[in-house]
Amino acid sequence: MMRADMPERKYAILAEGRFTDSNAKTSHGLIRYGKDEVACVIDSKLAGKTILDAMPHLERDAPIVVSLEEALEYSPTSILVGVAPAGGKLPMEWMDLLRAAADSGIEIVSGLHQRLAPEFPGANVWDVREPPDDLPLFSGEGFDVEPKVVLTVGTSAAIGKMTASLEIERAARKSGLQTEFAATGQTGIVIAGWGVSVDAVVSDFIAGASERLVLEAAKSSPDLILVEGQGSLGHPAYSGVTLGLLHGSCPDAIILCADASTEAIMAGVPRPKPSLAARLYEEVAALVKPAPVVAVSVNTRGLSDDEANDFIAKVSSETGIPAADPFRGSAKPILEAVSKAPKAEPLRV
Amino acid sequence: MMRADMPERKYAILAEGRFTDSNAKTSHGLIRYGKDEVACVIDSKLAGKTILDAMPHLERDAPIVVSLEEALEYSPTSILVGVAPAGGKLPMEWMDLLRAAADSGIEIVSGLHQRLAPEFPGANVWDVREPPDDLPLFSGEGFDVEPKVVLTVGTSAAIGKMTASLEIERAARKSGLQTEFAATGQTGIVIAGWGVSVDAVVSDFIAGASERLVLEAAKSSPDLILVEGQGSLGHPAYSGVTLGLLHGSCPDAIILCADASTEAIMAGVPRPKPSLAARLYEEVAALVKPAPVVAVSVNTRGLSDDEANDFIAKVSSETGIPAADPFRGSAKPILEAVSKAPKAEPLRV
Repeated sequence: MMRADMPERKYAILAEGRFTDSNAKTSHGLIRYGKDEVACVIDSKLAGKTILDAMPHLERDAPIVVSLEEALEYSPTSILVGVAPAGGKLPMEWMDLLRAAADSGIEIVSGLHQRLAPEFPGANVWDVREPPDDLPLFSGEGFDVEPKVVLTVGTSAAIGKMTASLEIERAARKSGLQTEFAATGQTGIVIAGWGVSVDAVVSDFIAGASERLVLEAAKSSPDLILVEGQGSLGHPAYSGVTLGLLHGSCPDAIILCADASTEAIMAGVPRPKPSLAARLYEEVAALVKPAPVVAVSVNTRGLSDDEANDFIAKVSSETGIPAADPFRGSAKPILEAVSKAPKAEPLRV
Repeated sequence: MMRADMPERKYAILAEGRFTDSNAKTSHGLIRYGKDEVACVIDSKLAGKTILDAMPHLERDAPIVVSLEEALEYSPTSILVGVAPAGGKLPMEWMDLLRAAADSGIEIVSGLHQRLAPEFPGANVWDVREPPDDLPLFSGEGFDVEPKVVLTVGTSAAIGKMTASLEIERAARKSGLQTEFAATGQTGIVIAGWGVSVDAVVSDFIAGASERLVLEAAKSSPDLILVEGQGSLGHPAYSGVTLGLLHGSCPDAIILCADASTEAIMAGVPRPKPSLAARLYEEVAALVKPAPVVAVSVNTRGLSDDEANDFIAKVSSETGIPAADPFRGSAKPILEAVSKAPKAEPLRV
């Protein structure tokens, strides 16, 4: 899905029985960060309350309703499958509800691995993870993009790269910078209304898809393009996607996302220190286009204020670059570092 | 396609008018290295000659024939599409010939991007690039594989990684080591009779596919598994595949492939020196499982004997490890370095 195809949406969010669960993160992301309207949330357990009653930090309110019927009173254009089902497959009642929604003329939006378009023939379905079928190979056109391009990367996967990107985007916009968020995963794509799920493309096209995303984001001539990172250079299951995105998006600067965990990435694979990760991201990026790691975005969830401040200071001292938690504190130090970074020059050969 | 499914084949190779072209490399690879029989080559321009008349270095002979009809006299089980068509699509006459071959009961084998199975309904078609539909995510099972696993990597793409792997495999077998070649690209897969084209899998599964390949190769309990590398850490179009394969295959040792070219990898992207490439491959591998670069396999094509020897000596001195051209000279120094490398231990976390 590219920017040109992007309609205006007004969402009913289907999160029956599990709106406050952590695997409703696409719902939460859409509410807090999404560019589209949110009409209501469907969750019969919480019906009668509003979003902010249930989850104040989402910062946007709308009613929680008991049924599709009630949801339709709020005139949504689209219904989002707002919870990832435990077994991977949607329960039958949800399928029935989605079919009824489609019959009433509403678009179904899903970020699930399981594609829904084949399940609802004739319906208007946006399978967010389905890649465009005309992806190019990497061409090098991304080297010549005019706006400054900044990519988030991580010391591990699932460390908050998307949230960091979105909080930095907010701060950038507040500071007057015209900013585009280039989404590379399902939640980010629902939030932005467009993007490419880079882990769903055929491997040959990871870099080409990433490059095309950036070219697309550059069309509105923003000051800044924030590319949502994926995986981690040190996570064996996803490092290929991470590197394809790093090279394909041709960033001018990199923001490293880290947290205080010392847990292994997976059995047998230690979590690298931010200083090691930062150096390796820079060295590997420089094979194609030099880009400095300019700041560390620290996820301090679970730490006390004092612990968080101490940890942020430690990371900054170890890496020698500014560090901050943009969700908890302020994205300003990160944004300043991004602003100072020059537009990188491609290598001349 | 996994090892268990591997039938015995006897190939007719379709290379009409272009058997000696460089884009007939799948034909040439099958003839020189393939485990299967070669019945004949179809090329009316060279009909009446034999393979060794036309290309002595292929080291295996068979008649070159004028037509499918004549080819069938040699009782092939399979017909290989042996030339990559210029525009990507097969010419109509080839389609007609393949249809006639399929009608006579022969299997069609193709390494093209364009899948042929849908073009020949009812026929027995092996689209070599088509990945298995049950690929797993990376699990870490590859950390516990018993045989020594050795991966080839390159300072650039298209530098001869497959040939290096196959020459080293030959030398290893000659020296008495039971060796498995784990093929990751179309030509390698045709040669081995099984494998996974890692650049054709969905990105999420690059590492899982690579791990499964190695697990599969380990089933025969060989002494050595040689994994065919793909792309290059410094080639922006393919680096994601390269890194997914590096982490997913869990190698114990790495062989770096290099050549004397100083040409850019692509416009704006310089070719890294072997010493830099070796260091970065090691550092990035070590995030998941430490594996030393134990030798450089040098492609000296186009150099005189003296130039080749000088260049090999220079590479060895700059990298501090043995270097040799296994195609031109001997794979022995490389094989010795591989033998000396210990079975690497996964990191303990």
